[in-house]
Amino acid sequence: MRIVSLAGGIGGARFLRGLKAAAPDSEITVIGNTGDDITLFGLRVCPDLDTVMYTLGGGINEEQGWGRADEHHTVKEELAAYGVEPQWFGLGDRDFATHIVRTQMLSAGYPLSQVTEALCARWQPGVRLLPMSDDRTETHVVVADADGRRAIHFQEWWVRLRASVPAEQIALVGAEDASPAPGVLDAIHNADVVIFPPSNPVVSIGTILQIPGIREAVEEKTVVGVSPIIGGAPVRGMADACLTAIGVETSAQAVLELYGSHLVDGWLVAEEDKGVALDGVAVEARRILMDSPEATREIAAAALALATSLGSTPRRA
Amino acid sequence: MRIVSLAGGIGGARFLRGLKAAAPDSEITVIGNTGDDITLFGLRVCPDLDTVMYTLGGGINEEQGWGRADEHHTVKEELAAYGVEPQWFGLGDRDFATHIVRTQMLSAGYPLSQVTEALCARWQPGVRLLPMSDDRTETHVVVADADGRRAIHFQEWWVRLRASVPAEQIALVGAEDASPAPGVLDAIHNADVVIFPPSNPVVSIGTILQIPGIREAVEEKTVVGVSPIIGGAPVRGMADACLTAIGVETSAQAVLELYGSHLVDGWLVAEEDKGVALDGVAVEARRILMDSPEATREIAAAALALATSLGSTPRRA
Repeated sequence: MRIVSLAGGIGGARFLRGLKAAAPDSEITVIGNTGDDITLFGLRVCPDLDTVMYTLGGGINEEQGWGRADEHHTVKEELAAYGVEPQWFGLGDRDFATHIVRTQMLSAGYPLSQVTEALCARWQPGVRLLPMSDDRTETHVVVADADGRRAIHFQEWWVRLRASVPAEQIALVGAEDASPAPGVLDAIHNADVVIFPPSNPVVSIGTILQIPGIREAVEEKTVVGVSPIIGGAPVRGMADACLTAIGVETSAQAVLELYGSHLVDGWLVAEEDKGVALDGVAVEARRILMDSPEATREIAAAALALATSLGSTPRRA
Repeated sequence: MRIVSLAGGIGGARFLRGLKAAAPDSEITVIGNTGDDITLFGLRVCPDLDTVMYTLGGGINEEQGWGRADEHHTVKEELAAYGVEPQWFGLGDRDFATHIVRTQMLSAGYPLSQVTEALCARWQPGVRLLPMSDDRTETHVVVADADGRRAIHFQEWWVRLRASVPAEQIALVGAEDASPAPGVLDAIHNADVVIFPPSNPVVSIGTILQIPGIREAVEEKTVVGVSPIIGGAPVRGMADACLTAIGVETSAQAVLELYGSHLVDGWLVAEEDKGVALDGVAVEARRILMDSPEATREIAAAALALATSLGSTPRRA
């Protein structure tokens, strides 16, 4: 089976590990969110791509969900000793090496997709990992606090402010002029099924869908999504803050409606959300908490089974 | 007293520590060699400036003579895991932070002299440390071995090949178009004395003197040098390989002649080299082995005393 999965960071990466286990003989292409990318200390950091790469490649800090296992923070401490900002983004020494290699390749003229492929040559994630775009796009968040009303980088809102200041608006700067990375549209066109892991529907899946051409390509496919909301609360992270920013309720029903039946054909929700329904969408209620690799594998298997039952051509087509 | 000292790496830095101790109330300006600078992994590395900065600022690895104390090598190991070259240059994690800050500032448009000043704001070396030039110059070495005859970066010859392949030629690429960094010529003009530490006469002191204008300015001053050669052998490092490359014998006499009486007014040699002589140069034989901070302070004090005895205006003027 040819599977395409969109993916954000931690939740997406963990789901993908389950997906690999559920479909070991499948060809999986992952389209990673790069709206969270940020340049720190002159180095290009791609948090979501790296989380997927480290998680599937066996290098992730399991407890934390992001960053490298057995990590040290000497470089960060030294940068702080020089008084260099920002100091709120926690890059470890092992992680720094990834960003150094990436930045060197980008500076040499390689597009991000080729850089990502080169990094994956080491990690062997077992999937084809593509950035959503080789073009630079960055998610910015409009906030208003004591420092005034202003747009800040997503990471500043997410990591430094921990989304404690309400987001008035969330925008992917550069989206209009961006193109899908090479291979992205082909992978979607050739896919038997497209999966939305329980990644953030606004700043992860929603961001990827903003790259011109990707949403349209995905709409042609059988799409099964796993709700990132269980019983009115995000499974992890602060998806509620992002949903509120765009005027969407934090519920499995509201996220399904946000995606819409034009995009999604199947929707996995938690048992407590079994009332969720939308015309044209097959909703299945089951355990969807990814609290172990085995549970995650079962969730991924259920998503694939639902997709298979729907057929590889969406009913709407 | 206003002192200007040219300086290479380890030997120069250790001498400077002695000079500070010998003349605590003096205003010392150090003109550092940047011909050894190299871009590694997209990061600009200035080995000699850093060795001076770390040594005088208390951050040096004393045993090794270069790099940071209490160093780790996680980033280097990770880069090697990615298969990134070169792997023969030993950058530590703490050291990486310096290069990251430097590269970020250079990329932002700051000249190396301002970057160096910013880095020194942390290290407080107690001297004014200036790069010889803000312009990029790099020492290249012509070698001929099994791989053919070719010019390689000085660091490749020095660090990777450990100067084991004879150098046919040593050239400072970019020298003709380079200018002294801001403050360099003023510091020399205003100096009471110029000191040449026992740094490498070819690729350290000799390199600095190749920046147009510096040699001429130094010639106007009372200059006292400390021989880097004791009894026919370099005090440390591989100065003999560099001297051989330019057709100069490895001896205190030959190095003095290389500098010449037009440049140098006083010359400190080891007791075993007491026969060294050159018309117009006051030669003093004494213990010049920098085997302890106290011994080094005494050598620096002797250099200053010799300079004082010669007066602040060179006899030739």
